[in-house]
Amino acid sequence: MPPSTDRPDPAGAPGGEDTPLALDDPAYREAVVELLGAIAYGEISAFERLAEDAKLAPRLEDKVAVAGKAAAEFTRVAPLHERITALGADPFAAMAPFREPIELFHEHTAPADWYEGLVKAFVGDGLADDFYREIAAFLDTDTRDLVLASVEETGHAAFVVDRVRAAIAADPRLGGRLALWGRRLMGEALTQAQRVAAERDALSSLLAGGADVPGLDLAAIGRMFTRLTERHTERMAELGLES
Amino acid sequence: MPPSTDRPDPAGAPGGEDTPLALDDPAYREAVVELLGAIAYGEISAFERLAEDAKLAPRLEDKVAVAGKAAAEFTRVAPLHERITALGADPFAAMAPFREPIELFHEHTAPADWYEGLVKAFVGDGLADDFYREIAAFLDTDTRDLVLASVEETGHAAFVVDRVRAAIAADPRLGGRLALWGRRLMGEALTQAQRVAAERDALSSLLAGGADVPGLDLAAIGRMFTRLTERHTERMAELGLES
Repeated sequence: MPPSTDRPDPAGAPGGEDTPLALDDPAYREAVVELLGAIAYGEISAFERLAEDAKLAPRLEDKVAVAGKAAAEFTRVAPLHERITALGADPFAAMAPFREPIELFHEHTAPADWYEGLVKAFVGDGLADDFYREIAAFLDTDTRDLVLASVEETGHAAFVVDRVRAAIAADPRLGGRLALWGRRLMGEALTQAQRVAAERDALSSLLAGGADVPGLDLAAIGRMFTRLTERHTERMAELGLES
Repeated sequence: MPPSTDRPDPAGAPGGEDTPLALDDPAYREAVVELLGAIAYGEISAFERLAEDAKLAPRLEDKVAVAGKAAAEFTRVAPLHERITALGADPFAAMAPFREPIELFHEHTAPADWYEGLVKAFVGDGLADDFYREIAAFLDTDTRDLVLASVEETGHAAFVVDRVRAAIAADPRLGGRLALWGRRLMGEALTQAQRVAAERDALSSLLAGGADVPGLDLAAIGRMFTRLTERHTERMAELGLES
């Protein structure tokens, strides 16, 4: 990502193709601020949870892998905060509404051991990233680039797949427990996402459509959820788990 | 820091001025591996402790500042590990001897609250960084550059000074408690450093001198400790604390 100073002022009148037009719409602008606030708080929270999970690591090598993932998540916060500020909003105010649903998600999915933590990082992050990629299709170019950079693979997936598969091979009963765990993660993620959708009108309108942005009809939203579920199933299969 | 692949192979014969000569000495090479292992484990441990301290943050802004410091410490681990590997050693084996003294330091200096955590990050890191800067004077150019990059200021100091000074202004009794705390940090750091010096011959010989490296006599070591103590006193004064 180039720093935000390299790009045209998103609030300015002339400049990129769709950016000024879309961001001139106060509802769209509010929605973008909410979206970036949600992603930023999610990264902070992911940092905290991964740092906590790292304590459960059986070996120093594993701890370093998870701590590295935590640090990588955190480095994504600053560009999101800069962009929120450039849009004339306060990053901490923008994150505030998402603190409770994201913390509730984590409270309800506190890993009982190292492997539940690994699966959560892989499956939970994957789900959130897929969702933000779906939303990215409805964004102006600059915001889309920023969102896509924020959900880029950190290279942690191969580590998780390797460790979880080896553990299940050594103890097949673990596979059954982790399969249930994956289902619970999906359920909790949907519960909190629905809550956010119900409470944050601006953000929801990104999907439902706004002034000059076409939205999704119910059938299209249904198809989106089908895609998210399919990707979730694929991820569980990568881990050797039924979903 | 350029990646280690851009620089001449430190183990190779021709190349930089002093590097191949110094690193041809197995005792010096072992000392460098130990030093880099100590710094790397210190960074991992700093990451863990700062991530823990971040939980005590009174506001989300404070939490983000401390989590950012944690992430910054962690990004310094990879170049140290790469260099240890380039020197033909295993990074995790190199870190292993320092795990216990560093963890003991942290166990004996677990912050009781947010402010003790802030002072510890500032005073403890500052002390360790000053010590590594002193050792850097005895290193070949490449290793020196790497060590100096690993102890570069992260910009966290201004945040700590601001928060601690404001808190002492609001509650002067806090100043007395934190002054005692600073003294304890210094004492524990010296205890563990002495233990490492007694147990790690190769590392100690960096200061005491080796085959083609001149060392310090006792008077010079005394002057080094005087400089470290003076810098500690300056840091405490920056926080508005007596040392």
